[in-house]
Amino acid sequence: MDMRAVNSLNYEEFIDLFGNVVEKCPQIAATVWSKRPFMTTVDLETSIFELIDSQPQSGKKGILRCIPDLAGRELQKGTLTAESMQEQSQAGLTSLSPEERVNLQHLNSLYKLKFGFPFVICARLNDKSKIAQELAARIQNQPEQELHNAIEEVKKICHLRLQNIHFASTVRPSNQ
Amino acid sequence: MDMRAVNSLNYEEFIDLFGNVVEKCPQIAATVWSKRPFMTTVDLETSIFELIDSQPQSGKKGILRCIPDLAGRELQKGTLTAESMQEQSQAGLTSLSPEERVNLQHLNSLYKLKFGFPFVICARLNDKSKIAQELAARIQNQPEQELHNAIEEVKKICHLRLQNIHFASTVRPSNQ
Repeated sequence: MDMRAVNSLNYEEFIDLFGNVVEKCPQIAATVWSKRPFMTTVDLETSIFELIDSQPQSGKKGILRCIPDLAGRELQKGTLTAESMQEQSQAGLTSLSPEERVNLQHLNSLYKLKFGFPFVICARLNDKSKIAQELAARIQNQPEQELHNAIEEVKKICHLRLQNIHFASTVRPSNQ
Repeated sequence: MDMRAVNSLNYEEFIDLFGNVVEKCPQIAATVWSKRPFMTTVDLETSIFELIDSQPQSGKKGILRCIPDLAGRELQKGTLTAESMQEQSQAGLTSLSPEERVNLQHLNSLYKLKFGFPFVICARLNDKSKIAQELAARIQNQPEQELHNAIEEVKKICHLRLQNIHFASTVRPSNQ
């Protein structure tokens, strides 16, 4: 990523490009724009992670609650964001057997009842059987530990989405 | 609004209903869900306003940057949220003459260059000529005063969106 080009983006272009690196939280990219200039992609990522870490517990839970269930209603309805669709598909969650889907949805419901936020895991670093195992294990955790785990997964997802943009983007300086 | 029904919504249902009372910031409703139970609609509104007020300056600017320009690119592209489309339409912004549109877009661009966030005004409490007057006046303000003004307008918009939900909704208790 050409950071000079990134740093010259106006806030609308910046949100167009980075608005979904944290799922459905464009407010995060919109806030981080104030931190320009960024020296490197890592510098941008660090600013995003610092903003996430600076949230109180309720704010962290708010970020998590914007994330769709794995193999959940948004996948069924076809309303996932492009990024989520790609990630869930790569992990094999779009081709579950009926039994696998029912099992995952049942565990997801129990998890949400216990913690008040969805089970979040970086799907691209796992596959469907590993995801089911992790869900069954993490549901046993204490709420504070699990909030920490889930936020760390948000960061892994964010890191990979930034990498995707890094390699795919043809960011050009703004003329505005 | 039947607050018992609202308080029984799970977080997904709550975000479905209130996720856009602050434009494109579902994270706000998702965070405020932690504050249940709400006694009244005013109580819910107060929780949202307290969350907005608790943000640092950069966070407030982040909220503002998620709001589309009045008579701007999202209106042209047809990508406004339903709420924004209705509000801009009611204020007469969908039926501007070419000269009015060019004038508003020019002032919007100058405003964004000066402040780093868009001109925000509660369109439903104004009409197109009042909006143009206010934009021409507010662009003269100091940045700190204008950040305050814009956030107060976000709250007016939020208040009216909550009122709309209050009168339109048939919230039913969740079975989940």
